[in-house]
Amino acid sequence: MEDIFVSSTNSYNILVGENLLKKTGYFIKQNINNAGFNIVIITDSLVCKIYGGVLKKSLMEFGFSVFMFAVPNKESSKNFSCLLEIYNFLVKCGITKKDIIIALGGGVVCDISGFVACTYLRGIRYINIPTTLLSQVDASIGGKNGVNFGNYKNLIGTIYSPSLIICDIFLLKTLKEKVFLSGFGEVIKYAVTFSKELFNILCEQNKNIYSHLKDIIIRCIKIKKNVIQIDEFEKNIRTKLNFGHTIGHALERYFNNSISHGEAVCVGMCYITEKSVKAGITSLYSFLKLKNLIKKYNLPTALKFNVEDIFKSVLKDKKIFGNVIRICVVKKIGHSVILTMPILKFRKFLNM
Amino acid sequence: MEDIFVSSTNSYNILVGENLLKKTGYFIKQNINNAGFNIVIITDSLVCKIYGGVLKKSLMEFGFSVFMFAVPNKESSKNFSCLLEIYNFLVKCGITKKDIIIALGGGVVCDISGFVACTYLRGIRYINIPTTLLSQVDASIGGKNGVNFGNYKNLIGTIYSPSLIICDIFLLKTLKEKVFLSGFGEVIKYAVTFSKELFNILCEQNKNIYSHLKDIIIRCIKIKKNVIQIDEFEKNIRTKLNFGHTIGHALERYFNNSISHGEAVCVGMCYITEKSVKAGITSLYSFLKLKNLIKKYNLPTALKFNVEDIFKSVLKDKKIFGNVIRICVVKKIGHSVILTMPILKFRKFLNM
Repeated sequence: MEDIFVSSTNSYNILVGENLLKKTGYFIKQNINNAGFNIVIITDSLVCKIYGGVLKKSLMEFGFSVFMFAVPNKESSKNFSCLLEIYNFLVKCGITKKDIIIALGGGVVCDISGFVACTYLRGIRYINIPTTLLSQVDASIGGKNGVNFGNYKNLIGTIYSPSLIICDIFLLKTLKEKVFLSGFGEVIKYAVTFSKELFNILCEQNKNIYSHLKDIIIRCIKIKKNVIQIDEFEKNIRTKLNFGHTIGHALERYFNNSISHGEAVCVGMCYITEKSVKAGITSLYSFLKLKNLIKKYNLPTALKFNVEDIFKSVLKDKKIFGNVIRICVVKKIGHSVILTMPILKFRKFLNM
Repeated sequence: MEDIFVSSTNSYNILVGENLLKKTGYFIKQNINNAGFNIVIITDSLVCKIYGGVLKKSLMEFGFSVFMFAVPNKESSKNFSCLLEIYNFLVKCGITKKDIIIALGGGVVCDISGFVACTYLRGIRYINIPTTLLSQVDASIGGKNGVNFGNYKNLIGTIYSPSLIICDIFLLKTLKEKVFLSGFGEVIKYAVTFSKELFNILCEQNKNIYSHLKDIIIRCIKIKKNVIQIDEFEKNIRTKLNFGHTIGHALERYFNNSISHGEAVCVGMCYITEKSVKAGITSLYSFLKLKNLIKKYNLPTALKFNVEDIFKSVLKDKKIFGNVIRICVVKKIGHSVILTMPILKFRKFLNM
């Protein structure tokens, strides 16, 4: 098992390994000081069936009272009515400031649980146990949480660190192939923005994806850890982790969440890179390498959409500051920069 | 004008003086770096009529686009449906991360605005312009915000610092006497827990309350500033600022908000001190001095209620950690301590 220490406003550890879920009770006793008696597991209906029992058993062995709340397994669970149901559940269970929330699930569960933990009683502790590749390498780390509002993704949210993350790679084995591969959208993002080495590993990867999975996940986590240790509240370099996301989020809205986050990010990365090639920032060679890698993981490099609609949607993005937008572009594989440009210039950029 | 600097996670200044409201645009230019073009004023229906125009004019003089959102002037405005309306309004106005929220009003407005600012786009900047004595000495400072949930006060909230506080003492002149005096509940709380000097000033105060008001407000602000600089996230000493509040909040619920926060805090302070006298912690002399001072400001020292109902309500308090509660008691005037006791012991304590 690898134990990665993250030093942020609240420091915490990320445990990465196989078959960790059933030892969760033990890890909590080891890592969390002065925990209360109660633990609320927030999960989704699908994950609950497969892993809820194992987790509950492990916690009860260590003397915790366990309460379980399952949201429907879909993006639309990240809404306010679901949020209010969870608050209600916490009140009914008599959860106090000493007690702990565990998020057992993918990005949706991690995002809504982090927001609940941050805002209930002005903040209680929470643990992420991510169950998808996407949430293991991205959503569970760094404290960003969010709830969708109307058609806007993560419009409401905060940055609030977990107290522990348990990344059990074994959990990924039950994922549907499409959901599993979707996580490679974020993996490729880390590689192309920060690590030529990781990019090459991904290119060389043979058919048995699982053989190098632990190494790949640890590399991604370490990239993210290094970024948030420098810039937890996204004043600067953390913006790089949004490569492909400005367009990606707009595409998720545009297609009413019928495409996955990973697919949207891949199309977003390609679209923005195609433009940065035209603008002379990126070499065509790097762009082709990026596209080939995305294709290798059965992810899309383009989709048909109306650019003006996407632009309008981007105007509601969190990366807009007054009349200026901050976006990340890749100069060459493993090396990215942040561009700050007036919105109207960005519109021209998108239409290049 | 007094300019008090607060050093917390995000440092900020508190400006205290008379006739400051009409200079708000100037103060923003002086104190806030890199502000956007848009400002959203969140206020209440009553305050909006009296001061909305002055504030708006001052901001427009400095080139800001101003949007105004008024909630009804009552405690029940601090609820989720109101919160969602405000989020909606911000989206419609196209507010971005660079823009600013101004809370113009009392505790209700400051509390909900702080929560909105913390959670919209994962945090934008906000300025408090408190218009009641209570919010000038307490609610506007220290970043605690909150929304009521069901019957529970501030159950949902965070701690998120403002970027500037403008305390215009002139604004207090239009308050109804009952609302104005209610603020002395918190003023007396500061005196009895931290400052014998302030306590004596309050005792000696003659009929013209306004004559020493600026000095009193500045003393209260400086006490709170010192506390939050040591313990912003209430791990310890900040609990002292909750003197009288554990019972007080329960009383507000019990009486369905038909009593004011200041009244509830006064009864709470007296009730807990009566018990701490019986427990041999507080001298009877100090208790009588406290009661006399409260009476001097036409505030109540007792109310009829069912202790068991209050105890049950206290169980949902934010000061409960597992099966233990943290409360503040006064040893003698100007000197308080924090007691940590098992809930069942606290129940006995309340019934002494």
